[in-house]
Amino acid sequence: MSFAGKNVLITGGVGFIGSNLARRLVREGANVTLLDSMLDEYGANLFNIKDIKDDVVLNFSDMRDEHSLRYLVRDKDYIFNLAGQVSHQDSMREPFMDMEVNTRAQLTLLETCRYYAPQTIIVFSSTRQIYGHPQYLPVDENHPLAPPDVNGINKLAAEHYHQLYTKVYGVRTVSLRLTNTYGPGQLIKNARQGFIGWFVNRAVTGETIQLFGTGEQLRDFNYVDDVVEAMCLAALHEDAYGDVFNLSGERASLKTVAETLIRLSGKGNLQIVPFPEERKKLTSEIFTAPVRR
Amino acid sequence: MSFAGKNVLITGGVGFIGSNLARRLVREGANVTLLDSMLDEYGANLFNIKDIKDDVVLNFSDMRDEHSLRYLVRDKDYIFNLAGQVSHQDSMREPFMDMEVNTRAQLTLLETCRYYAPQTIIVFSSTRQIYGHPQYLPVDENHPLAPPDVNGINKLAAEHYHQLYTKVYGVRTVSLRLTNTYGPGQLIKNARQGFIGWFVNRAVTGETIQLFGTGEQLRDFNYVDDVVEAMCLAALHEDAYGDVFNLSGERASLKTVAETLIRLSGKGNLQIVPFPEERKKLTSEIFTAPVRR
Repeated sequence: MSFAGKNVLITGGVGFIGSNLARRLVREGANVTLLDSMLDEYGANLFNIKDIKDDVVLNFSDMRDEHSLRYLVRDKDYIFNLAGQVSHQDSMREPFMDMEVNTRAQLTLLETCRYYAPQTIIVFSSTRQIYGHPQYLPVDENHPLAPPDVNGINKLAAEHYHQLYTKVYGVRTVSLRLTNTYGPGQLIKNARQGFIGWFVNRAVTGETIQLFGTGEQLRDFNYVDDVVEAMCLAALHEDAYGDVFNLSGERASLKTVAETLIRLSGKGNLQIVPFPEERKKLTSEIFTAPVRR
Repeated sequence: MSFAGKNVLITGGVGFIGSNLARRLVREGANVTLLDSMLDEYGANLFNIKDIKDDVVLNFSDMRDEHSLRYLVRDKDYIFNLAGQVSHQDSMREPFMDMEVNTRAQLTLLETCRYYAPQTIIVFSSTRQIYGHPQYLPVDENHPLAPPDVNGINKLAAEHYHQLYTKVYGVRTVSLRLTNTYGPGQLIKNARQGFIGWFVNRAVTGETIQLFGTGEQLRDFNYVDDVVEAMCLAALHEDAYGDVFNLSGERASLKTVAETLIRLSGKGNLQIVPFPEERKKLTSEIFTAPVRR
């Protein structure tokens, strides 16, 4: 099984994971179309696809706009549905924006595929965020769902839509619940793609990495190539369709990650401070970082 | 503890449960405002509040419109948030409409209360629909959530919003997961408020009640006065805030309900037919009923 000669659409294709996936699919001989709305600040960057720009079709449109989608999905064998807003802080500040991008746009894609691309197979990038604070470890797919922020609520609804459209309408989908992904192409100018990008930013610019609490909070991590591999496997295995899978990776404390980055860059420093009151309520927020430039 | 002298807003207040709740609150001496968008076919009916129309403030507006909400919530001690679309079939046919009414409008109310009515207490009418097909009985609040239709997905997102706004912003909310409610004021001209209304319609007009499968499917039922009582209790008990509760009631098979109604009305008849193929996929759909007039 391979993607050679297959028509593939990647939503959010100019972003971090999308561009890495595109590179892999181009290498395998797929006909790759990248859909991206190029929203400011959300991670899309033409630099990410500089080396493959002549090997892909680049299409600027927004998944919230159904009309362009109708044509774009029509002949696609696979759709990797990575478009979304992933910042927890942004979701709290702009809950309607998050809902439009993470829930309504997903419903739009599914309704469009139901009518215009019933043959397609969709891989959806969901998030471990929907579990909320772990009740046991390791968190498996049966762990209770308790999304701790607007982003988690909206992503969960989108995941439910994907499962529903498989069950009721036969549009084949599989959802992967991503944890902290890192690697080339990751947004580092702000914290919108998670804390790793921001830690990298602080370390390479010689600034302070500030941690709340003890810094011993554990997170798990996946290298982007492993996430891309998981997405390809999910797309090609029909017994995965209709289901959801956690992508789990290596575990490390925030402090370990920060110290490693500071050591590697030979710059930056670490500061551990008590949890600010207003952050205690947002269990998903584990560090401070300005998300506006 | 009572509602005497309290300012109360009921969203969806001219509907089935809303009007029964209004009657109770008027009797207790509350200052009751009913908000209703009077959408065609969704159950709002001025007949429902004929006897209390001089004792309430009637305000026609739609919860999707944030501007009218800002003023309406301002002085409210309690908000019973019952506005919504409850038909599973409509939600599949018009998923965006369902999303606007059941998810976006709820977020609008919560955002509005966060800024304009932080003092208020919100009771939200959620649904047992979010559990999907039961994995064990009785279904308790820890039962896994697997919404089987668009309506369930959107109501679950709304419930999550309510819990989140309590946890993060201190807007006190409590969610009740309603099962099949019946009683005076229920919409019976179509099946949008569940099968009981439709069964009543068929029985009193002497038509056929058609059941799929064996007719032995079990459902549980609450009389509307008991639901109203539960809502009042939830509003008045602060240890309930931030939490969710199932409203469970008496259990009976569809066949038993249908036979009882036919016997009581002395009219109508029962027909049991195999599940149609396209309905097997929609586990929530247990009987046939035209929802368009």
